[in-house]
Amino acid sequence: MQVNEIIWSEAEQQIAKDAFEKAYQRETNALITQVREYASGITELDEVWRLHDFLSARRHDIDGKYDYDYSALLFLFARLVKEEWLKLEDLSGLDQSKLAKINALAQM
Amino acid sequence: MQVNEIIWSEAEQQIAKDAFEKAYQRETNALITQVREYASGITELDEVWRLHDFLSARRHDIDGKYDYDYSALLFLFARLVKEEWLKLEDLSGLDQSKLAKINALAQM
Repeated sequence: MQVNEIIWSEAEQQIAKDAFEKAYQRETNALITQVREYASGITELDEVWRLHDFLSARRHDIDGKYDYDYSALLFLFARLVKEEWLKLEDLSGLDQSKLAKINALAQM
Repeated sequence: MQVNEIIWSEAEQQIAKDAFEKAYQRETNALITQVREYASGITELDEVWRLHDFLSARRHDIDGKYDYDYSALLFLFARLVKEEWLKLEDLSGLDQSKLAKINALAQM
């Protein structure tokens, strides 16, 4: 799969940026909700440290994942579809070959 | 100040252990309350990462601080008095020279 040489039209770039932003908002809003809910039930120090471990992992993951780079964007979108932060419908308007690649990668 | 050679009687050891445990419980309970209160007001991702930074610092601090070691116990108690996790009354029963040293160190 030659993903490095894929051309993104201006319209596709806008769709990609919107989808990227949408996924980021969904995932980070879910994290905020999760942190609030988990923290509200904390009664033991061990649970504080579990929250710390959880945040360390999520921060590393989110910082690494949301890198807007056209050469890796199909992989990122496939991952976001697999993780259910994006639906294929959020990407509609991209050309069929991109959507097919994203869909195929998301099945792996 | 020759703190390394201080002798702790059995009665003093029990007072010290109880005071140590009392301070630990107070400080960690305060942390739990603080985390719950802070987390309940989180609405932005930046605040999640601030909570993460705060927990990293507190974990490092608490892990390092609560080391039950007689050779350093006067310093620890002085620090705990200074930070208001202990009162001198919590240490009553220790001999006067220990209390005077703790009090002097806590003023520094």
